[in-house]
This record gives sequence, structure tokens and C-alpha cells, in this order.
Amino acid sequence: METIDHLIHAKWIITCEDTNRVLENHALAIKGKNIIAILPSSEAAKKYKAASEHHYTTHAVMPGLINSHTHLAMNIFRGLADDKELMDWLTNYIWPAEKKWVSRELVKDASALAMAEMIRGGTTCFNDMYFFLEATAEAADQAGIRAHIGMTVIDFPTAWANTVDDYFAKGIAFYQAYKDHPRITATLAPHSTYTVSEKNLARVKALADEYHLKTNIHAHEAPQDVEGCLKLNHKRPLQCLQEVGLLSPQLIAIHMTQLNDQDFALLQQHKPHIVHCPESNMKLASGTCPVEKLFQLGLNVALGTDGAASNNDLDMIGEMRTAAFLAKLSTLDPKALPAEKVMRMATLNGAKALGIDTLTGSLVPGKAADFIAIDLEQIETQPLYHPISQIVYASSRNQVTDVWVAGKQLLKNRELLTLDEKELIKKAQNWRKKIMN
Amino acid sequence: METIDHLIHAKWIITCEDTNRVLENHALAIKGKNIIAILPSSEAAKKYKAASEHHYTTHAVMPGLINSHTHLAMNIFRGLADDKELMDWLTNYIWPAEKKWVSRELVKDASALAMAEMIRGGTTCFNDMYFFLEATAEAADQAGIRAHIGMTVIDFPTAWANTVDDYFAKGIAFYQAYKDHPRITATLAPHSTYTVSEKNLARVKALADEYHLKTNIHAHEAPQDVEGCLKLNHKRPLQCLQEVGLLSPQLIAIHMTQLNDQDFALLQQHKPHIVHCPESNMKLASGTCPVEKLFQLGLNVALGTDGAASNNDLDMIGEMRTAAFLAKLSTLDPKALPAEKVMRMATLNGAKALGIDTLTGSLVPGKAADFIAIDLEQIETQPLYHPISQIVYASSRNQVTDVWVAGKQLLKNRELLTLDEKELIKKAQNWRKKIMN
Repeated sequence: METIDHLIHAKWIITCEDTNRVLENHALAIKGKNIIAILPSSEAAKKYKAASEHHYTTHAVMPGLINSHTHLAMNIFRGLADDKELMDWLTNYIWPAEKKWVSRELVKDASALAMAEMIRGGTTCFNDMYFFLEATAEAADQAGIRAHIGMTVIDFPTAWANTVDDYFAKGIAFYQAYKDHPRITATLAPHSTYTVSEKNLARVKALADEYHLKTNIHAHEAPQDVEGCLKLNHKRPLQCLQEVGLLSPQLIAIHMTQLNDQDFALLQQHKPHIVHCPESNMKLASGTCPVEKLFQLGLNVALGTDGAASNNDLDMIGEMRTAAFLAKLSTLDPKALPAEKVMRMATLNGAKALGIDTLTGSLVPGKAADFIAIDLEQIETQPLYHPISQIVYASSRNQVTDVWVAGKQLLKNRELLTLDEKELIKKAQNWRKKIMN
Repeated sequence: METIDHLIHAKWIITCEDTNRVLENHALAIKGKNIIAILPSSEAAKKYKAASEHHYTTHAVMPGLINSHTHLAMNIFRGLADDKELMDWLTNYIWPAEKKWVSRELVKDASALAMAEMIRGGTTCFNDMYFFLEATAEAADQAGIRAHIGMTVIDFPTAWANTVDDYFAKGIAFYQAYKDHPRITATLAPHSTYTVSEKNLARVKALADEYHLKTNIHAHEAPQDVEGCLKLNHKRPLQCLQEVGLLSPQLIAIHMTQLNDQDFALLQQHKPHIVHCPESNMKLASGTCPVEKLFQLGLNVALGTDGAASNNDLDMIGEMRTAAFLAKLSTLDPKALPAEKVMRMATLNGAKALGIDTLTGSLVPGKAADFIAIDLEQIETQPLYHPISQIVYASSRNQVTDVWVAGKQLLKNRELLTLDEKELIKKAQNWRKKIMN
């Protein structure tokens, strides 16, 4: 008998590999941070002596969800203003509130609140873009979640930095501080091609090369995004990114709802990763990312919620469902983006986009034990014919009972183990009082 | 001090009247089945002596949600087949399964399961269209939910009826049996203008006049719907309904995604009620109901989930969110269908469509005590700036803690009081075993 740390028995294990498997009555064997085997539960009992055994008898176990684009701390402004024109929303509500209130303390409290919501909803890894990066990193370190944190660059001053040099200096300091952290990874995050000039994008490219970093950027999000880039940089966003050398598989292009034939050709040639944020695109009336067409061109498309100020949740289970529904409606093809494919967007494709698919994103021996258990024996998901269909189309995030990252349990029967739920709510309420005064 | 049955104190009461009010720290005074007053909690304590008092201290209390179109018992086939072409889905999966399995017993078990899901999600009233009407009515009688049940008519035989005469005879028998039930109402439900000939639609119209009944019909659901009607009845669905005299405020026209200028003119002239089912329309790739345009033409538009075989849930909180998002995207206007308006679609507008808006659909003295409590002090809905925004855009159905219909409690702190959750799940699993063999 081999001694291991955990044996995780499940009614179903959904692997989310490129060729997905749904295994019944199997177990994950976990040693340290990693999965070392996946085998029938009956065999596992004979082969391993585990320090702890967990029996998810009515559950599907699947890879933790990867939220490939978000602005976590913006959840402190969730619901402050809805149903507004984009520029009215930004200039009269969000930017003034951010200018007045965003601080290291706010970002830490709001990011932790967002992580609590994400963990409760089955998200084990996120790709963030905001300010006061250390505050988000500290919250992620405590929460135990896997975090990619963007070194924001934008051509105008914010509560975090005054000049472009200041953004770069603070970003580099953050990268240096966290470069050896096992779960926290710095990325580059120039905001967009309408708020960052070509000159500054070229500085981002130099830094990406120097430190071997992924670069995230909002691109072709809405008509205003493309128009703004034409005005600032005299070309369309993808062309601008190509000219500075950023358009490559090292780029994560977010949103991508406004694409013409020239854009499709550039994408097919340079193969950046794409992040689709359907709910934010719908709520802000931005447009529709042509996900199936991008897959046909050979691109990798992942899924994100965007910030909770424009979603208004951080619910990746709901986001999968919306992505599938929107793909069907926008192509008028009910076969578009089937459940299994959209589940891969929320797991393995996210890991590919972030460059960590050898580490996580699917359940296979050798990868990190980043997984979640979803209880499907509830009124809302009975009877059950296919677990993947029930997860994507019928379940809700509240059916996620247990969450593990790198072999450590973060949620146990819906109870947060690393974050204090009541304290987070109290802090959110205190911020609300200040912001509303 | 006046003696009453219940005093319901709430942090917020959302009335959902035409001119909506959000009242803080108010109470509903309930005597028998009805609300007799809404007043500040502090005054209520002085004025009323209540047999029971309930304190929803972190909750919003709002009218129960009205699911204005569904096929409850189809939830037994939920997830049996997804991501299929409409005709493939119907002819190779749904219709064969229905033919083989639909029975009085199945409809009773499946309808009760669906009611459990609806009550857990805050729905207090539904408008159904299926077979074995008495089985659904018996389940509704036990569940305590408010039920409108359609007397289905279709030109071909099903597991329930063999001929058109048979459908009418069974429908009339159902109407007679339930005409005095306080919560259960018969309606007419010819399936569609592509499956019911003009001759039989005229019989429906005669019966609607004789018994003063509302008529429900799927109309302009998808291109195939309009084409089928052109083939069968040689005109478009709305024109067909006009010619037999059914196009009037007594008609509930469901889906309505395929409308041309002639259709809009007919709608504006005859003012039927409309039911929008955005998630089913998206999943089946049917098209988009132009909700804001219909409101501009002066029509009443309500909200429904459709059956769980094509949704795949019966979640009206989620349906509100999708309706708002889809309206914004399809009009490219983020101001379209704001949260308060979509909440009215799911409450008062549903009551108007069903012809019961003097009885329910908003919280005002004199109406039935049909209401729900939603706990907003959870991680997912903090901080809270506007309760309506948080309910529509950020909350999930699992935050519904308590549900009351006609002064009787059906859900208490998420526990079903009139239905046996475990037994319903067991029955669903038994049906699954049979259907999968």
C-alpha cells in the first residue's frame, strides 16, 4: 500500500482533457499538491493508504473553473449603477467612484470578497487586471486560490499611479516581489489600444520579452474601442498590436466582439489566445464574440466574467451557460458550443491561455489537484442523464460543495476554510456606507 | 389592536406596482389569504396583534414570481438530449420519449418535481401547457402553488388523446372539475398554428367565448413555426389567429421572435398579451423577441421559462437576468429593459397576461399574500446599493429563503413545507431508470 495524502472518491469524474472522459465511481489519488493517479474507487482502496478520504457520492468532480478575465476589486461597485450608456456609466459613476475610493485597503477587502464569491462558485484560478496589485496578491495568498495578476498600464493617472513610468515601476516591483510565489503569477496588462499609445505598448512588449510574461489587453470590445484606437493610433487594435510585436500566442486578447475580415486574417496568422466575456458584453451592449468562428480558425478561446461591476457576478457556471446560449442564438445553430466544449473553455482553455496547462486545467496524473465537487442530487438537477449537461445547463453555483487548490481544501460543504465570510460582508458594508455618503 | 394572522417584517418590500415602490423596514399585514395593509414595521407592531410574526431582517420581500409559460412535466426529459437541431431533437428524442413514457403517473411525479424547483426558486404561479391535466392539477393542489393549466389541443394523437374531439372532451372535463378551485384555473391551449388547423382553432375560439377562458398559443416561435403555418393555413400565424377571432387581449401569444411589419400592425391593433421565453429561444436558436418594441407598441409582455427540456431550468430569477441582458445586446442599447422593468415582467405583467392582476402580481392591500423573501446579505450580493439590481443581476434562486401563496407558507428557510424533496428525487431517479432502459 502506497501512503498518500488524500483519496477523493466521486460518483463522476469529468477530466476536461482535450478528449474528455466522464468516469463513474472513480477516485483521485493526491500526494502533496498533485494528482498522482485516477482509478476506479474499488482499486484505489486496495492500492493507497490515504491520510484522508472524501466520498463525493452524489457529486461530479471536475477541474476547478478558471476565470480568464476579471477586475476583482470592482465588485465593491457592483450594482452602484446599472442600465446606463457605457460612457455615462464610466464617466459619471465608475471613474469618479474609483478616483475617490480606490486604495490599497479597498482593493484588499474587495478582492478578498470577490475570491470568497469565486471559491463558493467553483473558481480556483483567476486572471485579474486592476490596481494595487500587492493587495490582490495578499488576499490571494491568504485565500489559497491560484492568481494571475496584471501589471496595469494606462496612459492617464489613476488612484494607483500618476505616470506611465509610475505604472511600469510599480508593475515591475510587483513582479519582483512575487516571481517565486507558487500560486501567484504576474502578467502584463496594458488596458487597451485606445488608452495606451503605440509607444507605450512597445515598452510593454520589451518588458514581456525581458521577463517572459504573458500580456493581457482589452481588444475590439465594443465599437467605441475600435474607434478610440483609430483615433489614438490611426489603425485598428489588432493591427496596432501586430506592429508593436505583441500579437502572438503570448497575447491574451479579451472581448473581441468587433472583428472584420482583416482582423480574422491577423488572428489566424498570429494565434493569440482569446477570452470571451459574454455576460459583460451583453449587459454593456458591446456585441458578440464569434466564438465558433474563432475555434474554426484554430484559436484557443477561454471564458471570463469580467468585473462584477458589469456582469454583475463572478459566476463561471452561469457564464458557461450564457456562452453556450449566446453562441446558439448568434449563429442560429442549436448545435453551436455544446456543453462539453464550453466546459473546456472554462477549464483547460483557460489554463492554455494563461500558459499553465501543464500545471492545471484538467484532471490528469501529474497536474495540480485543483478540483471542485458539484452535488447533482438536488431537485434542480434531477433526473440526471448526462452530468456535463446538468452542470452547464441546469445546475447553479450553489451546488458547488467543495473546492480544492494544489491539494489544499478551500471550501468544505459550502463553508469557506481560508476566508472569514462574516468579516468580509461586514467590510463590504462599511465600504458601502463610505461610498454612499 | 386588530387581530390578524401574520405580520411579515422585511428590510425591504418591493411592491412591483406599475409605479414601483421600495419600502425600507416595512411590514405586510396578512389576514386569511390576503394582504390587508403595508406599513412601517414600527407602526405595525402597535396596530396589529398577529398570530405569527416573521422577521426577514436581511431580506427583500417581493411578489412571488409568475412563470407565464412552461411545460412542467417535460423536466423528466431535461438533459436527455441537448445541443441538437430542433427537428432532430423533437423527432428523434423528445417525441419518441413522450410517446413511450408520458402517462398520468409520470405527469404527476414530474409536475410535482417541477413545482418543488419553482417554489425553491421563488415562483408562486405558473401557466402550463401539457397532457394529463388532472395530474398536474393534483400536484398543484397539494403543493399550494397557483396554477393555470392549459387544455392542450393538437391535430395529431399523443399519449393523452387520440383525436381532436378527444382533446376537447378531456379539456372540458378538466375545466368542469376545477372551475371552482381557488388556485387552479383552466385555460385553452391550442399548441400552435402549424399543428392546429384553422377549423380547430375556430372550435377553440367558440369554447373560449362559451366559458370565458384565456387562450395560450405558441406563435412565431422560430422560422419553422411561421413556415409550417404558411403551409398548413396559408397565412402567417397572427393573421390566422385574427381570422378565427382569437387575436385579442384574451390571447396569450408565446415566444414571438419572428415578426414583420404586418405582424407588428396586427399586434398593435389587437393587443394580445405576449410571453417572452429568452433562454429557450436562445438554446433552441429560435430568434429574439423584440421586447422593447412590443412595449413601445403598448403591449403587455410577461416572462416564462418554457419547459425544462429546452431551458434547462425553471429559474425565473435567472430568466429575468437573461431577458435584461438579451434586450441590451439585441438593441445594442445598455439602457434597454432595466432591472425594475424586467422584474415587473416576471410579476405584475404575468398576472395581467393571465387575467389575475386584481388578485396577485404586486404587493398591495386587497391582493393575495403571494410573496417571497430573498436574503441579500450573502457574499454574492454585497455590498448592496439597490435591492432590485442585486436581485436581478447578482443574486441566484438559492437566495430565496421563504415563499408564501395565498397566506400559506410553502418554503421556510429553504425547506419545502408541502412537498417531500427526498421522495420527489427518488421518483425522478426511478423514471430515469425506466427511460434509459
